Amino acid sequence: MDIATLRKAHPDHWNKATAIRALTLDAVAAANSGHSGMPIGMADAATVLFEKHLKFDAANPEWPDRDRFILSAGHGSMLLYSLLYLTGSEHITLEEIKNFRQWGAKTAGHPENFLAPGIETTTGPLGQGISNAVGFAMAEEMLRARFGKKVIDHHTYCIAGDGCLMEGVSQEAIGIAGRHQLSKLIVLWDNNNITIDGTVELSDRTDQPARFRAAGWDVIEIDGHDPEAIDKALTAAKKSDKPSMIACKTHIALGHAAQDTSKGHGALTNAEQNDAAKTAWGWSAPAFVVPDDIKSAWAEIGQRGAQTRAEWEANLASLSGARQAEFARTIAGDAPKKLSAVIRALKKQFTDEAPKLATRASSERVLEVVNPVLPETVGGSADLTGSNNTKTGDLGVFDTDNRKGRYVYWGIREHGMAAAMNGMALHGGIRPYGGTFMCFTDYARPAMRLAALMKIPTVFVMTHDSIGLGEDGPTHQPVEHLAISRATPNTMVFRPADTIETAEAWEIALTSKDTPSVLSLTRQGLPTVRLEHKTKNLTAQGAYVLADATGKRQVILIATGSEVSVAMAAREALQEQGIGTRVVSMPCMELFAQQDAAYRKRVLPGGPVRVGIEAAVRQGWDRWLLGERGREAKADFVGMDSFGASAPAPELFEKFGITAENVVARVKALL
Amino acid sequence: MDIATLRKAHPDHWNKATAIRALTLDAVAAANSGHSGMPIGMADAATVLFEKHLKFDAANPEWPDRDRFILSAGHGSMLLYSLLYLTGSEHITLEEIKNFRQWGAKTAGHPENFLAPGIETTTGPLGQGISNAVGFAMAEEMLRARFGKKVIDHHTYCIAGDGCLMEGVSQEAIGIAGRHQLSKLIVLWDNNNITIDGTVELSDRTDQPARFRAAGWDVIEIDGHDPEAIDKALTAAKKSDKPSMIACKTHIALGHAAQDTSKGHGALTNAEQNDAAKTAWGWSAPAFVVPDDIKSAWAEIGQRGAQTRAEWEANLASLSGARQAEFARTIAGDAPKKLSAVIRALKKQFTDEAPKLATRASSERVLEVVNPVLPETVGGSADLTGSNNTKTGDLGVFDTDNRKGRYVYWGIREHGMAAAMNGMALHGGIRPYGGTFMCFTDYARPAMRLAALMKIPTVFVMTHDSIGLGEDGPTHQPVEHLAISRATPNTMVFRPADTIETAEAWEIALTSKDTPSVLSLTRQGLPTVRLEHKTKNLTAQGAYVLADATGKRQVILIATGSEVSVAMAAREALQEQGIGTRVVSMPCMELFAQQDAAYRKRVLPGGPVRVGIEAAVRQGWDRWLLGERGREAKADFVGMDSFGASAPAPELFEKFGITAENVVARVKALL
Repeated sequence: MDIATLRKAHPDHWNKATAIRALTLDAVAAANSGHSGMPIGMADAATVLFEKHLKFDAANPEWPDRDRFILSAGHGSMLLYSLLYLTGSEHITLEEIKNFRQWGAKTAGHPENFLAPGIETTTGPLGQGISNAVGFAMAEEMLRARFGKKVIDHHTYCIAGDGCLMEGVSQEAIGIAGRHQLSKLIVLWDNNNITIDGTVELSDRTDQPARFRAAGWDVIEIDGHDPEAIDKALTAAKKSDKPSMIACKTHIALGHAAQDTSKGHGALTNAEQNDAAKTAWGWSAPAFVVPDDIKSAWAEIGQRGAQTRAEWEANLASLSGARQAEFARTIAGDAPKKLSAVIRALKKQFTDEAPKLATRASSERVLEVVNPVLPETVGGSADLTGSNNTKTGDLGVFDTDNRKGRYVYWGIREHGMAAAMNGMALHGGIRPYGGTFMCFTDYARPAMRLAALMKIPTVFVMTHDSIGLGEDGPTHQPVEHLAISRATPNTMVFRPADTIETAEAWEIALTSKDTPSVLSLTRQGLPTVRLEHKTKNLTAQGAYVLADATGKRQVILIATGSEVSVAMAAREALQEQGIGTRVVSMPCMELFAQQDAAYRKRVLPGGPVRVGIEAAVRQGWDRWLLGERGREAKADFVGMDSFGASAPAPELFEKFGITAENVVARVKALL
Repeated sequence: MDIATLRKAHPDHWNKATAIRALTLDAVAAANSGHSGMPIGMADAATVLFEKHLKFDAANPEWPDRDRFILSAGHGSMLLYSLLYLTGSEHITLEEIKNFRQWGAKTAGHPENFLAPGIETTTGPLGQGISNAVGFAMAEEMLRARFGKKVIDHHTYCIAGDGCLMEGVSQEAIGIAGRHQLSKLIVLWDNNNITIDGTVELSDRTDQPARFRAAGWDVIEIDGHDPEAIDKALTAAKKSDKPSMIACKTHIALGHAAQDTSKGHGALTNAEQNDAAKTAWGWSAPAFVVPDDIKSAWAEIGQRGAQTRAEWEANLASLSGARQAEFARTIAGDAPKKLSAVIRALKKQFTDEAPKLATRASSERVLEVVNPVLPETVGGSADLTGSNNTKTGDLGVFDTDNRKGRYVYWGIREHGMAAAMNGMALHGGIRPYGGTFMCFTDYARPAMRLAALMKIPTVFVMTHDSIGLGEDGPTHQPVEHLAISRATPNTMVFRPADTIETAEAWEIALTSKDTPSVLSLTRQGLPTVRLEHKTKNLTAQGAYVLADATGKRQVILIATGSEVSVAMAAREALQEQGIGTRVVSMPCMELFAQQDAAYRKRVLPGGPVRVGIEAAVRQGWDRWLLGERGREAKADFVGMDSFGASAPAPELFEKFGITAENVVARVKALL
């Protein structure tokens, strides 16, 4: 259909959709940057979705049972901002629209979940939103099973572009959704056939509907500008017992000189062309102005869910007080009071037992006491359940016939797992953790970074965290991955030395509200090094004195994880030679950096030589070894400066020199 | 078919295939670790492939026109090692088989390309091999177009498992292969329905044949134990004008007690069960012994390509001497002599012009002179061609009707691009470079790490390398990505300050033989800071004195890339106040670390205070700021300690304090 026909056939719809188009054009032109074409092309689909299907109440954007709207094609952020503004968001005001992409604005270049309610997730890196959406839909299934349809019963809608579908993570996501028949997940594909480099055919000829069907989805193909077709497709999709993909054939930058071109993907800033587009659209209002009748029509859409929300409040109120409180606690992400008690009891037990355990096994023992008291945890693994020790007896397996199951077999999909876990965490009511080998942090990286940026407490359980993995060799042995996660802002990287530090790390991870955690856990057994019970969570300080020097303090050994016991052995040898040696266990550099200067100085006083020990690259250590502003200490580091190798683990530690003997030698060279 | 039927129907085939099975069982049992089931299950397919289809000559494993055999399911490494040993590799001897997974052995846990010829790539991280294979097949097409069928005309075979197909990168790879109709690429899918966690259905119900067909592949479904069916399928696949996927229905750990179970995926070490399996197979030879008749049959297979190879040598010899020399140079990966001359001339020109250019634009100018003299370069971008500045006029676009094209529109597939580039580099004869935004290093990470581990010179062109990207915001602004690449062993990270350093960085990247390069390039314009022409490649030293102190040297400013001009401005202000200030440009920390201690000390003498300046996290800098063993200098760092934000770039540099004024203030606080 051409524009004239579209306008004539559905004038009210057209005007509402064109309000999005005009705001987009104006905001991008004002910012002199951004992406105009996608919001213009998908305005029709979004308008029908918001007008007729999306369950929401603009006055209560954090209503837990709202439908979720995920803009996976995040560069089209003005679509989302326009929708929020037009429906009456108190956060995305006209002022914000005018400040699109400016310092301090909530209308960032790409949607950032933490800037305003209604922005459900942070997108832009392509493929993430659709993968988050899978997690949102899983969270909905789980919470519906747990709390009942009266309080949780909503859809997850997602707009994805060609870029999202080309990114590999989307295949992982659609595989998960298909496997679990997430029937309340509905993806609208902006099938505009344009990428930045040109037409999609330049790089891809995939039959996307066939691809989605192969993954177990229902697919409906429509003209993405026809409001009746959009409405019908959404109605049908909601009835499907599978996840649905609606392929919306659209024209990017519809009605603009740049229509159907890759230029249309970007910032359309030519005033003359923009005016011409507005004329073609029949839009004569000044920049940033939406005529009153259209504004009112949109405002009504923003309010149409108010009644449903009121009914929902009544439903919630009909639950028992305890149930209401539990729902509120769960959605708020507050840990139950029992958590710290069970952790403390476990620490006491571990101190008494002093087990020799791999920290991945310690982690399992922690989860065994934690999962029963935290019904919001959802565990999983990217096909390494037995190796990651992520499954405990009580969880049950999430499946089509067991939506109460709290364990997910993610398959060999680290990236999809991480992105879906982010979606669960963003949905609220779920505290997800998932495992893989630490080396495959690489595969999950884009989603791990986004967890940090989004300020959500996703927990990444990364086992086999060094050459201690042994024979599988360098493809599976992380050496740089601690540094990678530590380099990432707002990420807590825990490398616990024993069972007790593992319990403490979990306690912090499970009570975090806005920081993801990486648990770096060993394959190999480790002795208990914390032999005296402390109620206090010492790991929360990031680093602490595990064993002080006897006699004059000449040396400080700083170590993490599996190398803390190496440090303890080296200390023993040094003390025998009369060299006073302190051992500092440093399970979390980020938390140590947050301690006050006095505490940091107490743990790491200037003067003694320092040797850091970690079976990984040195990068990230110098701050602690050399001193924060320099001139604090002579220092050395025992670790890895190359990739590992395939051989039994004990031999690897010998060959790479990560031994007490080598530590002693390096200390003596410094003294 | 049951084993008895299989044995009876094709006894010779059975015995040959079972030699692989027996060696696998013995080697894994001896190592007490590894993966037995896959080689046992895929022995039939591999045997038929090697016996009847694969063009190779065991005595000349580096023959450039050999078919390539890629074991994407790298955990089944004993399949590959068995094949190499049985066909007579001089590298994978019986001794090596017996030393499977031991220190110093060529038979590492997962195949490592640099340990022995015949191991075409390093696999284990799933999905990589199949994506490398796409690059191998593209390289073959390109070299065939360039040198003619007489010298390049071979197939790429790949064995992939369920894990490879679940990893998202495989979708990117099959999309690329389908788009480009890589008809000489043949993937054998080990369809054994087992993953580590259990049956595939636990996590996936994708209709894989339908998925591959949707991507433009031919698919043939067969019984993977039936040698006739395997042979017929391979014959058909070779005739197809599309890439082919042969779905081989197999039994993991066929004939073993662990058959068809996830236990069968791992190390089968129970002696009794292993003996029983051998009995079922009709295999009575002692451990590690292959009966003479079977050994001879395999040896014949190893030699059957000798004649073809001799003919190929004759074909090669029939080319002109210049053509032969060019072929040899290209395959060897030696840069032509002209390269350094054109780089030198360009540097001279740049010094005269002193342009203000973004380093991504500088990079394009370098490529414009380099690509014409290096016909082996293949450029590309993950759908950011205009932003990455990777396409030069002479390249032509690789397409189904233009196999000579040297530019690839990879689509929005950073990971697939990186892995396919690795495949090209491994194939030989191609020097690939590809671009994306630096932030999306995250997406390409698994393949970037493997390039480093594999010792191949893939070039990653990472533009928009800081908050200088501006309005797109923190999802697109790298802050930790320099640290991430620097943390990775065997990786050169270049952050050139101007056009001249960019040219020097490219020269190093394009002459590297065993180290990948990351070029970190700006979006925003930068002034030329190297104002005096030097023939010598100063970037090759990693860091150098760009401007020395006038008067007493009190301060050393160390900076990279866009911040070198900030350092120069700060120096000017400090010198005006009588504070002698040296500026060190440090375009490549890794190369500086390789210089001798005397040079490093000349550039960074102890004493003066040091301030590092880089619009990124500090991690990785302390070695240069604080001194390599501590106590060298008082130091500070001006950079980022959080994610960025969405706003115009100049404002971001102000807000985050990456300015000459702030540098001056921080210096003065130290003095």
